Amino acid sequence: MADEVLQEMLPYLKENFGNPSSIHRFGRLATKAVETARKRIADLIGAQPSEILFTSGGTESNNTALFGTLGKNATLITSSIEHDAVLEPCKKLESEGHKIIYLPVDSSGTVDIEKLKSVITNETGLVSVMYANNEVGTIQPIQEIAQVCKQHHVLFHTDAVQAVGKIPIKVSDLGVDLMSISSHKIHGPKGVGALYIRNGVKIAPFVLGGGQENGLRSGTENVANIVGFGKACQLAKENLDSNFIHLKNLRDTLIQNVSEISHVTINGHRANRLPNNAHFTFLGVNGEDLIIKLDEHGIAASTGSACSVKTQKASHVLAAMGFAHEQITGSLRLTVGLTNNIEEIEKTVTVLKKVVAELRSVSPFKAKYGFAN
Amino acid sequence: MADEVLQEMLPYLKENFGNPSSIHRFGRLATKAVETARKRIADLIGAQPSEILFTSGGTESNNTALFGTLGKNATLITSSIEHDAVLEPCKKLESEGHKIIYLPVDSSGTVDIEKLKSVITNETGLVSVMYANNEVGTIQPIQEIAQVCKQHHVLFHTDAVQAVGKIPIKVSDLGVDLMSISSHKIHGPKGVGALYIRNGVKIAPFVLGGGQENGLRSGTENVANIVGFGKACQLAKENLDSNFIHLKNLRDTLIQNVSEISHVTINGHRANRLPNNAHFTFLGVNGEDLIIKLDEHGIAASTGSACSVKTQKASHVLAAMGFAHEQITGSLRLTVGLTNNIEEIEKTVTVLKKVVAELRSVSPFKAKYGFAN
Repeated sequence: MADEVLQEMLPYLKENFGNPSSIHRFGRLATKAVETARKRIADLIGAQPSEILFTSGGTESNNTALFGTLGKNATLITSSIEHDAVLEPCKKLESEGHKIIYLPVDSSGTVDIEKLKSVITNETGLVSVMYANNEVGTIQPIQEIAQVCKQHHVLFHTDAVQAVGKIPIKVSDLGVDLMSISSHKIHGPKGVGALYIRNGVKIAPFVLGGGQENGLRSGTENVANIVGFGKACQLAKENLDSNFIHLKNLRDTLIQNVSEISHVTINGHRANRLPNNAHFTFLGVNGEDLIIKLDEHGIAASTGSACSVKTQKASHVLAAMGFAHEQITGSLRLTVGLTNNIEEIEKTVTVLKKVVAELRSVSPFKAKYGFAN
Repeated sequence: MADEVLQEMLPYLKENFGNPSSIHRFGRLATKAVETARKRIADLIGAQPSEILFTSGGTESNNTALFGTLGKNATLITSSIEHDAVLEPCKKLESEGHKIIYLPVDSSGTVDIEKLKSVITNETGLVSVMYANNEVGTIQPIQEIAQVCKQHHVLFHTDAVQAVGKIPIKVSDLGVDLMSISSHKIHGPKGVGALYIRNGVKIAPFVLGGGQENGLRSGTENVANIVGFGKACQLAKENLDSNFIHLKNLRDTLIQNVSEISHVTINGHRANRLPNNAHFTFLGVNGEDLIIKLDEHGIAASTGSACSVKTQKASHVLAAMGFAHEQITGSLRLTVGLTNNIEEIEKTVTVLKKVVAELRSVSPFKAKYGFAN
């Protein structure tokens, strides 16, 4: 979390601890802080403040978008590489009788837009395709998908949790109707997110109760975290270009140096990808072992989504991209952050070369690939 | 928020910003912190840590309990004085075909347990009755209600958001199956709560996605707020008796002194009530006007629930207690907090006497009640 974010939050964790729903002074101070944050979030994505709904995070934003817009018996079209925060609501909607169509992706993880054109009909109630994939970083053709949806008068939601704050996003240019955002992905606090809802789009509330957020999201507002989220958006907007260049430079250096390792592939789209994401397959190595080895050197990495790593599921994203089981298990996601520097990238590459060699020296695939001892 | 709570949270807003779902060191640190908090919350209510589910707050806890346990076509029995975080989910369940029975209350705001006995059947899927009312502070006969439910093998949920941390609560003694708790009601941070789910009780998840919280609540854990919530529970447990005496002394002084004002009634149950709650009706006065006048003197008060004050609805709680419209509009809730002292109570009484007299001197009911100028 950025230090400026914490500084902005502190008064709302101390003396300004009012409830925005109260009409006394403490309540009004809290309301004002929430509305300032709402404007900052809107500014980052080119929206109106009235189009920003605060939630408890990206997952709730996705749940709200999917459960709140799909009419009775309507079909939902999504992609086969969505985050579980979209796929699990889809499963529930399917169990309730909705038809769900999963769009395939190519080997770069890009959604097949021709397939979308061929399956979208008047019966389609919603299309939900993520902005950028959380594992391989591939950015989807969101503007084109939005155009197809518009032609068919179908609502379009995008889970932009990975993309907002990292690449320029203007909802008005994109033509999306709903967009999920998360705070802790952009150096804001955890436990808060937002759903952009284009003015005029009708949505049923997901969390029901006291009627906060214009009746669309009940529960006492998480004021301090909302304030921190707002500050994080302001910082992301101010530093978007320089952050992009910094992240991309580090990431490109990482990819270039890791490419020197034998039997390695760089996964995801080469050009259309998040600036912070690198994703590799090291043949003959188990990604889980790699993470543990890297962790011993103070390097935090992941195989698939952090959210699913404890369940040890094979990545559905890589499977959809056509990866064989052996390629999936040898995969590693490395993301760079704003506080990283070139020395850390160099250290990571050195450590990675060492541990990959170590693991390969005892790999059951040693003979197959001819790894050295 | 208690300062000790903030101190406990700060490391998780700064250097220990890991995601508990990650398997690297930063992730493991976060997991450990979440589990320590879970134990502290369990300890406060006499539960096992495995029975504590973290949510984004009391409202989500209530939504989870109601939407996650009610079988197809099952009837739900609740009370007519629940918080909107229970009543609004009930309305949705009703629209989906469930029968909802609202138990009446007497003039003290106590639920009619004989009525419960007469309407509970094999078709009842869930009983949900709040532990203590948020407006008038009346504590319900939870143990007796739990016994009735047990006899009929019906699940029992209680919204204990107002009661936990203020009065001694042991779930094992009570016999409840599900209990909602909120952090910011006990000097913890906003945006976090818990649902106690007795071991063995089956519940469907409400927020779907990455499968955190054993698959029962998806979304990256709000680590810092969970840590703060845990600390708040620890403090509440350690100081339960002394806090109770402090709050009750202040509240009783307040009630005693306010009673000196003419044409005032003390609402709610005299004995079975939260130690911090006082609720009055000042005949011939508009409660909203009273709040504004009190606010000018730095005193924060409320009419009904803070959550519904902006919607200007007449209190459904007071209506259920049989209050006439004029009594409802003249009502004021005053709650005392741990940081309040006797001087503030005396000041409040002085101000209250003054502003009530002012408002009554211009009241349309002046002649009716014979108020002095």
